[in-house]
Amino acid sequence: MTTPTQHRLCMIPGPVEFDADVLSAMATPATSHVDPLFIEKFGSAIELLRKVFFAPTGQPFVVAGSGTLTWDATAANLIENGDNVLVINTGIFGDWFAECIGVYGGVVDAVRAPFGSRPSLAQIEAALTSKHYKLVTVTHVDTSSGVLNNIEDICALVKRVSPNTLIALDGVCSVGAEVIKQEEWGIDVVMTGSQKALGVPPGLAVMVVSKRALEVALNRKSPPTTYFASFKKWLPIMQKYEARQASYFATPPVQLILALQVSLEQLVAAQGSLEHRFAQHRVASAKVKDTLESWGLKIVPVNRACAANTLTAVYYPAGVAPAEFLGKVGSRGVVLAGGLHPEHATKYFRIGHMNVSVVNDSLVKHLDTTLNAIKAALQECGHKI
Amino acid sequence: MTTPTQHRLCMIPGPVEFDADVLSAMATPATSHVDPLFIEKFGSAIELLRKVFFAPTGQPFVVAGSGTLTWDATAANLIENGDNVLVINTGIFGDWFAECIGVYGGVVDAVRAPFGSRPSLAQIEAALTSKHYKLVTVTHVDTSSGVLNNIEDICALVKRVSPNTLIALDGVCSVGAEVIKQEEWGIDVVMTGSQKALGVPPGLAVMVVSKRALEVALNRKSPPTTYFASFKKWLPIMQKYEARQASYFATPPVQLILALQVSLEQLVAAQGSLEHRFAQHRVASAKVKDTLESWGLKIVPVNRACAANTLTAVYYPAGVAPAEFLGKVGSRGVVLAGGLHPEHATKYFRIGHMNVSVVNDSLVKHLDTTLNAIKAALQECGHKI
Repeated sequence: MTTPTQHRLCMIPGPVEFDADVLSAMATPATSHVDPLFIEKFGSAIELLRKVFFAPTGQPFVVAGSGTLTWDATAANLIENGDNVLVINTGIFGDWFAECIGVYGGVVDAVRAPFGSRPSLAQIEAALTSKHYKLVTVTHVDTSSGVLNNIEDICALVKRVSPNTLIALDGVCSVGAEVIKQEEWGIDVVMTGSQKALGVPPGLAVMVVSKRALEVALNRKSPPTTYFASFKKWLPIMQKYEARQASYFATPPVQLILALQVSLEQLVAAQGSLEHRFAQHRVASAKVKDTLESWGLKIVPVNRACAANTLTAVYYPAGVAPAEFLGKVGSRGVVLAGGLHPEHATKYFRIGHMNVSVVNDSLVKHLDTTLNAIKAALQECGHKI
Repeated sequence: MTTPTQHRLCMIPGPVEFDADVLSAMATPATSHVDPLFIEKFGSAIELLRKVFFAPTGQPFVVAGSGTLTWDATAANLIENGDNVLVINTGIFGDWFAECIGVYGGVVDAVRAPFGSRPSLAQIEAALTSKHYKLVTVTHVDTSSGVLNNIEDICALVKRVSPNTLIALDGVCSVGAEVIKQEEWGIDVVMTGSQKALGVPPGLAVMVVSKRALEVALNRKSPPTTYFASFKKWLPIMQKYEARQASYFATPPVQLILALQVSLEQLVAAQGSLEHRFAQHRVASAKVKDTLESWGLKIVPVNRACAANTLTAVYYPAGVAPAEFLGKVGSRGVVLAGGLHPEHATKYFRIGHMNVSVVNDSLVKHLDTTLNAIKAALQECGHKI
């Protein structure tokens, strides 16, 4: 739990602070990708992903890349030229996912909402009943706006009005911290990157795919329009490693996968359960948001029901200049993120609160350190608290 | 230079053994991808790649992925539907690269040679003059066969008979160890992964693209058929980081890029020059091959001129069983690789000799340790030496 001198707390919405054992695994000496030690750990990571995603019959894929690569994988494997796709858009990541789907031949419609809010179920139902969509995509937590979608309700709606439509969830800033019951809710693809609530340095594209979606991918009319992200290529590799056998398609990122395995074990084992971990993130998020509001700040999401528990996007108070404020927080040893949505970027900043900074809060005090740095910086910038 | 107890030397053709400073960088605490510290190191890595690739005006790309992703990037950015591509094939990696090109619409012809040898310049010239190819691809070192291609001669031939044809070099098992003068020889794309002679754990796709190829990619008729590996998306990111400015398309693998920067500095600075490093790999390769031949073993490449300096593929002597032999070497603390070419896999094994195992050989004695383990295992398997 020690933080080296000079290290500034990385309290952005990913990369997050890492556990010492996870970081140690990153420095594992050279290990063959077909070494029995690595095969065992990779197989274990695949099994653990099913638990973390609540997808007992899902197929995990772990590939060198970033969360963005999981968009390519979803689109290139599930979409054929001219397929209709509905994107439930809550910010810039919805725009970009839509663009990615277009690259792979998908014809995209979007339901949108003003910045800081999410489309209503009625809007989504109207879209779903207007034409048949092969795939609906939804961003669980839009990292640009801090808006949380109501995934359980959206899934129930899709199942009711368009049961054949596949559901793809961008869980990049949610998996491991926000509640996701992939199989119970009927989500076909859940995607994430390693550097958010999974608590592993960036460099892994992680996804779990339902049996139904895998069948669509394996029985498509045209071949998949990707080589590196092809489910057909990676499926036998994942199956072999899970069966504790060597296999090869492209060299897996050994050290990152060893770090992932360490972190996943912590997720399922530490302090009781994943449910407990989700609750801890709700508590931490409320603490950050309550504190900021008590200082007169306004969060970006229009209400708490649509506010993510993994980050807080919050408007600068009047008179506080972004660069000056973020610099003052930084000089107190805490790194925050500026705004990301192009139209609103200069109006708000973002605080990530995930993984060790939340679940070990009583030990590491990352949240108090962060809030204290923000308070002092606000005051120095002339905001009265 | 210490090796932890229990660690077995990883003497396969990648991942290779890593320098202690490179491994330390892998365990860097959480750092924002827009932190000034990281921006400086990423910018430096981009500059250093130009030196290592001998491409002063080339455009480096560093993306989370593996060497395989560089095939997708090359094909998806440079090839449009129906474009003719010539693959100079020296083994399984040529077959796979050809398959990848086909995914992106390329129409592939191949020139081939028997296992252990390489196509002649006359074969290549005949193919190049039979029709116009937009792109010719060549594997510098085919990791499956240990065969080295004569890149300088092939490039001169292409420039003479088909100067408009783009040249793409799969340098996965060569960049940083075999001589490549990208710009002098006129190579348009040089690709590699991090875990070979660059001496960094696996997880990075690394490539340098010529101005000519970049223009082809940016001015293509149809949009690039990839999102994650799009040159159009990554070019402004690479330019910004090199100008020491923050930018975002997908989260870069911070720790791997920090490790890359450390290793690239060693490549260009340590012990004088890259030329010296290339010479060291030739000496190490000759030592391994001479020793094995002195024990009555036969290397896979049909002669030394077409044998890679980064690995040695060598046939098992009569009566030596693969699993027993590799197990005995492993029990002596050295990990080797079996054969990879599907038709010949059980007949030969492979020894990687790259990066620290070569350039620090006088200190770390990886080559002697490996050769001693092989000798003892061969003798125990009944081979007379």
